[in-house]
Amino acid sequence: MNKKDIDYTCYLVTDHKDKTNEEILNIIEEALKGGTSIVQIREKTASTKDFYELALKVKEITHKYDVPLLINDRLDIAIAIDADGVHIGQEDMPAQKAREILGEEKIIGVSASTIEEAKKAEADGADYIGTGAVFPTATKDDAPSITKDDLNEITSSISIPTVAIGGITLENAHELKDTGIAGFSVVSAIMSAENPKEASEKLREIFNSQ
Amino acid sequence: MNKKDIDYTCYLVTDHKDKTNEEILNIIEEALKGGTSIVQIREKTASTKDFYELALKVKEITHKYDVPLLINDRLDIAIAIDADGVHIGQEDMPAQKAREILGEEKIIGVSASTIEEAKKAEADGADYIGTGAVFPTATKDDAPSITKDDLNEITSSISIPTVAIGGITLENAHELKDTGIAGFSVVSAIMSAENPKEASEKLREIFNSQ
Repeated sequence: MNKKDIDYTCYLVTDHKDKTNEEILNIIEEALKGGTSIVQIREKTASTKDFYELALKVKEITHKYDVPLLINDRLDIAIAIDADGVHIGQEDMPAQKAREILGEEKIIGVSASTIEEAKKAEADGADYIGTGAVFPTATKDDAPSITKDDLNEITSSISIPTVAIGGITLENAHELKDTGIAGFSVVSAIMSAENPKEASEKLREIFNSQ
Repeated sequence: MNKKDIDYTCYLVTDHKDKTNEEILNIIEEALKGGTSIVQIREKTASTKDFYELALKVKEITHKYDVPLLINDRLDIAIAIDADGVHIGQEDMPAQKAREILGEEKIIGVSASTIEEAKKAEADGADYIGTGAVFPTATKDDAPSITKDDLNEITSSISIPTVAIGGITLENAHELKDTGIAGFSVVSAIMSAENPKEASEKLREIFNSQ
């Protein structure tokens, strides 16, 4: 995979909630059919064994659709399943250390909610940043929130892609027009959608009509 | 470090509880002065960043005393700080995969509470097993408990060292006489000791008088 060709348009972050692994795998596959272009597995309470086993199964699916798979926070899981990369937050492994461990070929994304964090992420070797929350979100209630102006300032302060995250829905995604983002990162808009395939298609449509 | 020379006699597993990092580092240093011969950092709730930063600091101390440092569960932390190895439970990364990732030089310990788990750990490439709980313990209330007979059967079923863990104190450690163990693994007996140096010395004494 050439890192320059990554399509961030429709970026799915998984969320276990009350779902079984089988339900999660079904949702991911449906989402990929609808054009989800990159997947991140986020597991904050699972045991390492359960995380590893789920990640192995998700990789079979993302591999089939030739879509990159990232692991949230856990470099050990990413290494164990040979994922395409990791997404790390400000409370995770320092990005520079993650780059040193994973090497140049792997994708590293960093959560950044200020210009300073965004510039540091870029300097530390991040391939993209995730910025938000751009809308109020129930998934991560401790996430900092940023305005559309903040988002504009952040995307124009760095040369790596910015993915917007936090409370993005089919209803509000269009409001992120002209912010310079590379894509919509969503949890609930796909994970909790009645039709994850359609939700992915619509998110792509909204992004491409910007 | 030659893995054959590892001294498992007095094996300290850290526990954060209400302690600051500074307090933990002090306890570890005192324990090492008293003869603690191997240290495992166990952090089940810390952020990756906090775990990484604590582990870096612990490594400075264990390095000074030339004692191996293992990381519980998290191979990513072990790799990031170049620890001497990991200790993995039955709900962590499969031991075979851990060996594949870490290579032959690193120490891998596996929690095993049955003969089957012990034999599997050995076959999967573990350097030692941790077996317990040999006494009732408040640190891990979900841990399986084993009798002295179980312990005897486990140590005689494998050729790698067995470290006993779970509720071991200065008062009851002598009861593990003639079980074929390679050492006492303790949390509270040192972490909560008034004098961690003395506690380590006494644990060594008890072990060596067996």
